Formats: sequence, structure tokens, C-alpha cells
Amino acid sequence: MEKKIIIVGAGLVGSLWAVYMRKAGYKVVIYERRSDIRKAEISAGKSINLALSERGWNSLKTAGIKEDIEKIAIPMTGRVMHSEEGELTYQAYGKKDEAIYSVSRGHLNAIMMNLAEKKGNSEIHYQHQCIDADLKNGKITLKNLKTNEIFEDKADVVFAADGAYSAIRYNSMQKVDRFNFSQFYVEDGYKELLLPAGSMGEYQIEKNALHIWPRGRFMLIALPNEDGSFTCTLFMPYENHKYAFNDLDSDEKIDTFFKTVFPDFYNLMPNLIDNWHQNPLSSMSITRCYPWTVGKFALLGDSAHSTVPFYGQGMNAGFEDCFIMWKLYKKYDNWEDTFREFQIVRKPDGDALQDLSLDNYYVMRDHVADENFLLQKKIEAKIHENHPDKWVPLYTQVSFSNIRYSEAYKNGKRQEKIMQKIMKIPNIKEIWNSKEIEEKIISMI
Amino acid sequence: MEKKIIIVGAGLVGSLWAVYMRKAGYKVVIYERRSDIRKAEISAGKSINLALSERGWNSLKTAGIKEDIEKIAIPMTGRVMHSEEGELTYQAYGKKDEAIYSVSRGHLNAIMMNLAEKKGNSEIHYQHQCIDADLKNGKITLKNLKTNEIFEDKADVVFAADGAYSAIRYNSMQKVDRFNFSQFYVEDGYKELLLPAGSMGEYQIEKNALHIWPRGRFMLIALPNEDGSFTCTLFMPYENHKYAFNDLDSDEKIDTFFKTVFPDFYNLMPNLIDNWHQNPLSSMSITRCYPWTVGKFALLGDSAHSTVPFYGQGMNAGFEDCFIMWKLYKKYDNWEDTFREFQIVRKPDGDALQDLSLDNYYVMRDHVADENFLLQKKIEAKIHENHPDKWVPLYTQVSFSNIRYSEAYKNGKRQEKIMQKIMKIPNIKEIWNSKEIEEKIISMI
Repeated sequence: MEKKIIIVGAGLVGSLWAVYMRKAGYKVVIYERRSDIRKAEISAGKSINLALSERGWNSLKTAGIKEDIEKIAIPMTGRVMHSEEGELTYQAYGKKDEAIYSVSRGHLNAIMMNLAEKKGNSEIHYQHQCIDADLKNGKITLKNLKTNEIFEDKADVVFAADGAYSAIRYNSMQKVDRFNFSQFYVEDGYKELLLPAGSMGEYQIEKNALHIWPRGRFMLIALPNEDGSFTCTLFMPYENHKYAFNDLDSDEKIDTFFKTVFPDFYNLMPNLIDNWHQNPLSSMSITRCYPWTVGKFALLGDSAHSTVPFYGQGMNAGFEDCFIMWKLYKKYDNWEDTFREFQIVRKPDGDALQDLSLDNYYVMRDHVADENFLLQKKIEAKIHENHPDKWVPLYTQVSFSNIRYSEAYKNGKRQEKIMQKIMKIPNIKEIWNSKEIEEKIISMI
Repeated sequence: MEKKIIIVGAGLVGSLWAVYMRKAGYKVVIYERRSDIRKAEISAGKSINLALSERGWNSLKTAGIKEDIEKIAIPMTGRVMHSEEGELTYQAYGKKDEAIYSVSRGHLNAIMMNLAEKKGNSEIHYQHQCIDADLKNGKITLKNLKTNEIFEDKADVVFAADGAYSAIRYNSMQKVDRFNFSQFYVEDGYKELLLPAGSMGEYQIEKNALHIWPRGRFMLIALPNEDGSFTCTLFMPYENHKYAFNDLDSDEKIDTFFKTVFPDFYNLMPNLIDNWHQNPLSSMSITRCYPWTVGKFALLGDSAHSTVPFYGQGMNAGFEDCFIMWKLYKKYDNWEDTFREFQIVRKPDGDALQDLSLDNYYVMRDHVADENFLLQKKIEAKIHENHPDKWVPLYTQVSFSNIRYSEAYKNGKRQEKIMQKIMKIPNIKEIWNSKEIEEKIISMI
């Protein structure tokens, strides 16, 4: 009998996992609640921070589809910070050849679906909602949203790649005895805006960078698109702060807000108000749970460890899940052992990914424009340059390496302790580039 | 038009709230998933630690049904600790007239249902499962489990008193944007055993006490029943410890276990093995969430703040919820303001209740038999005796007062800090009863 798996969700992780599973000779059946993204208009407001980095690339490469994605990826070699006065400050993410890559979620998803189908006739069934799951027997109940027909399907194993609000997790796993679960919303929401290309199709601001307008308790960011436009996202509290979404309740207030706090952006942005009203205000949450595998079901990606987008690692972590699952499957050649080890190995990394994302939320919001923060990063970059085997900055570990998230998180904490001591040296601004400081740091490692 | 409320769940909190609402002139309709507890056999294994204390009594009194419950309540004035050698140590819970009261969950529930119906023809519909809720419009969808009929009902407001695994919370509230939620299982499970009355119907161990066999990482407790028997509960890890439920996988091991670690209990207990197999092994979890009210729905009791049973406060907190909700309703005379203030005022107390329960889990397990712990409690009792306005022990605040849980928790932390310093005094065992120590403590408050 042909080996068969079911994947619930044809998003980024689901479609990549389909490619992997075809390689293993499985018949792959995918059920997706939404319509075919390739035929529908791509829904706006849901593409924040799709920044591909090393872990994502590593998994795409292993699946054999790296080249296909490279064609649509725009390298961003650093952050450009925009002050209220319109001054720009540049901070490289890593060494010269190191970059994270801006990709459109919709475009990426469409390519992956094509590849999943092409690499060996996976069936993708759209507008099929998963309404129930028999965890023990690998069975799911589906509703065809076009015909309202209800039917069952069954496979050797089922992967729930159905996102932060996973139906399989909500409707089935969460009701399993001793299943730990939490969903926690941060007090900020986000709203997308599209900064169009200039009149000649040109990029209005530096193409190969991630732009940030840090303003303390809120911020705007922008990532380049292929057509010269930028997808911009405003992150801000819902309420109870000087600036808050719920207080921007008239067009006039919105206009004044942007004119006041993001003047350079305001000057580049036509139809600000229309743009504002086109896109929804969305919330952000962290969901943690355990176990990640129950019976013949496994959670993959956001359904297991959805996070806030502030390290740009949500997608990369999901892709890395596929890579880890794949490695274990090759090691064991059976799902029972693969599932057992997958969650034991991978859960600490899911937790660390979320802790990193939350920490970086505060960094981007509160510190990224800070003089001391920039100096600290400059010192760390220098130590890394001179002692690459002894000091790898946290951002580099997370974005440009495949070190486990949990390891990176621990290393980052250690480094932060050292750097806090260094930054307290009274004349650090003058002597930061000295041999003395370099040796002091090395001795503290 | 007659004012109408719906209560989902005819458990302890639901039936008490029905009594309250009849007082306010509401038509009360209750839907309960299970069968009528008064006609069915009371399900075993679900009655741990039903210890009524001040908050519970206070709410029963306000509802006008205190006297009805007093008839079935057995006072427990202190803890009796049983050592492995069979030695007994007694520790009073409070002053002479202060006691917590052992009540049978089933019996209590039956009386409350009778009272709810009697105090003004509430309708209780059994075997009705709530399968959906329209939070905004105060509507619920029900399934009559006897006929499989599905129908809707609607009320001014709906109260979800449907327990730790609340259907309304799982199926509706949890899917509301920005609803924070967590369910966390402790690593221990519990199993009930029934220690029968002696051959003459007499209590085999002290009637007016809560018995504890503390053994470090696990413990057995016993609460008196009206018929001379005791409901006993073994709390123990599922796995990964010297003694664990999953390792007690043969009758021989179970027998040896009791004989070894609870010899005095073992000698009193006939049919241990049968008893063991009759009752299920159950898990324990803490569920936290917020908001507690959405639209026309409010969570009450365990559905809002279910906790582990180690402070004996789960039911008392649920009853106190009713009291607080009632006070606010009388203040505002409308549900919108009542709901708004209820959750703001009460959420910190729900959180504190859970923190207290978790802390007491460690106290009962690890410290209750400890010499230093007993001395510390003795000192605190003395200070309380001499300075009742300055020092009220935490247990007394929680069990014998109506001080807010959140206040009690903070006070307890402050007291613990003082006592930790006192207990470090080298010859404290000799001088604990001195004027010097008394003055030192008073000066530190």
C-alpha cells in the first residue's frame, strides 16, 4: 500500500513540508481552509516581517528548492533608522556578505504550492475546513466549504500546519488530558500600509535595508518589495498610551499623527488615509503548548509555537521544524520515534524563539535608536570580527547560523551580562576601540 | 417583560448563583450537561478538598442559605499529621473557634439545586450540552442529549459556571481576538480512596481534623464524611520520581507501597486494591484567562480561575465570585457596569488564589511535617494572639477572613520575609517564646 500523509494547511510550512514528504515517497494530501491563494487576490495586512534568513534557506536547500525562492528574495544587509528629524543611521546586520531577505508572503506561498504540486502530484484541496480529528487513528473530518459536504480522510500520520489558531490544536489536542497551552496577546496591534514606488518605479528609500522609525513605545518598519514599493507596518499599543490605535479615531488625527512623528515617511506617502482604512488592525499573540505530537498527529510551525514578529524568525522557525522533522525521520524511518524525539528536541527551541522575539520587541521599540545600544553593537561587531570563534553576536547566531535557538538564547544572555559591565566603564565612549577593552571582554567570556 | 438569565452549569457555583438571581427577581434557566446528581449515583473521584471556609459561608449567608448547609458540614479545627512511624502531630488552623468544614460535594450540590428550585422555580434542564454561544446577543445553542434536538435560548445575560473545562470558554470566548488564556497541568495527579467507618460506625481516626500523611514529594490526605468514613486522596507525580502513579502498575506494588509509606493508614484500610481500581487517576490544572466577561456573557468560578486544590479554596472562591457579582449588581443595577467592574476588581484575586494554591502545594508536600515550619507557625500564632491587629497569619487571612486574596497574598509575602529573618536567629528554638523575639517581629512589620 502506498504510504500517505495528510497536511492540514497549505501555508508556507505546509507547502514546504509537502515538498519534503514527496521526496520520501509519500502520497501527500493537503487540506486548506482558504481559497487558492494563486487565484485569489492576496489578502493584505498579513505579511509582516517576512524576512528569510539562514535557517529558512537551509531548509529550502535541503528540500531542493532554494534556487526557486532566490529569484524573488531581496537582500537587506542592515537596518536604516529614521529619526523624527529625518536623520538616517545605518546598522549592518552582520558581515558584508550577510543579509536577511525580504520576500512577499503571497508570492512565496504561491511558488511553494506550485513546487509541492510539481515535485510529485500532491493534491491540494482548497476551501476544506478541518472540523474534527481522531488523534489516535490519524483520521480527520472535513467540511467542503463549497458543497457543505462532510467527509473523513485518514493517513499514516497527519501534520497540522494550520497556523497560530490551529483548528486541530483548538478542537482536539487542547482537550487531551494534561495538554498544556497558553495564548498571550501583547498589548500592541499592527496595521500595514503600502508605500508605493516612485513615479519612475524607483525605490523611494534605500532598497537593500529594513527601515525602522523607532519612537519609544511604538514604531514603523518597512520592507522592500520587488516592484519598488515597501510593505510598511505600524506597531503600536491599542490603548492606554500617549499614542494608541484606539485614539486615532478620525482622519484628521491619523494625518496629524504621521505628520508629527514620521515626517519623512509622511512626505513620501500618498493616500495615507485611504491606505489606513484599507488594511485591518491586527493583534499579535504568542501561543505555547506541549506536547506537540499526540497519537498520529504532529504540530508544525505556528500551530506549535506562533510568535510575535520582532525577530523575523516565525517563518524561519517553521521551515527549520521541517528540516528537523526530516532529519529525524531519516534517522528512524518510523513516525513513532520521529514524533517522540521531535518534540523533546525541538520544544526548548520553540520556547527560546518566542523569548527572543519578545526581547527583540523591546529592543526594536526602545533601544534601537539609542546611542549606547549602537555603541554596544559596534563593540560586539569588532570583537566578532577579531575573534569569530569566541564571540558571535546574538543577532548573527539567530539569523546567520543554524545554532539551536535555545543555545543562542543562552549565549545571548551570557554576552549581555558581559556587555553590561563593559558599557558601565565610565569612559567607554572614548576607549571602546582599545586593545584593553578587547582583552577585557575576551577574558570575561 | 420578565427579566431572564441563563446559567450554564448546575454545579456548586451555578446553583448558588441561581439562588442569588431569584432574589433579584430574575427568571433563571439552568442548563447542565450531566444528569441530575440527585437521581444518579454521585460520581466518585471528584470531591477532593471540599473544605468550606469563611468566604464560602459569607456568600451562603448573603444568599440566605447558610443554615441549610450547616446541617451537613463537619468542622475541622486543625491538621493531624501522620508520620511514617505512625506518630501524630496536631496543628490548629486558627484560634479555638476557627475551623474549616468538610462537606460532600454531591450532598452540597444536591441541597443547592433543591434550594435553587425551591427559592423560586428556577428551571434546571439536565443532559443539555451547550454547543455554541453568540456572545454579543446573549444567545446559546443547546443540544438535548436525550433527544439529540438542537435549539437556541436567549437571555439578558448568560453566566458560564461550567467549570475548568468550560464549553463557553473553549468554544466561544477563546476564539475572541485578544483573549488571553492558559491551561497548565501540574506534574502530579490524584486518586481517591474511601476509608470506611469502623465496625460500629465510628470514625477510625480523629473526626474533627484534616489528616495529612506528608511524604515529601507526595502525600495522602483525608477529610471526614458524615457517615464515619473519610474521603482520602493520594497526590503523587505521574512519573519520573521515586514513587509515581505510572510505576504502581501491579496490585503487588500498590500493596507494598501503602504498607511501606502509609503503614497506619494501611492497617485501617480494607479492600485497598479494589478501592484503588474503582477510582480514576485524575489530573490537576490551573486555567487563567482574561477578560472574564465578553458581551452578555460572564465566567463564574472555575471557568474563570480553576485552581489546584491545595488551599481548599476553589469552591470558596467561586462562592465569593457570586457575592462580589451580587454586590456590584446591587450597586449598579445594570449588567454592563457590573460586568465591567467585576472582572477588573476580581481578576487579581483569581490570580492570587491560584498563586496561593500553588504555594500551599509545596507547603503541604514538603514542609508541613518540618520541625522548623511547625515552630514558625507556632511563633506566628503567638504574635497573632498577642497582636491580632498587627499580625494575622496567612492561613487565617485566606480561610477565616474576607480580606481580598490579592491582599492576603501580598501580606503573606511580607510576613514570610520577616519570619525568614527570625528563623535564622541561631538559638531561635530556645528563645522563640521571649519578649525579645516578639518585639523584634513587631518592629519589623
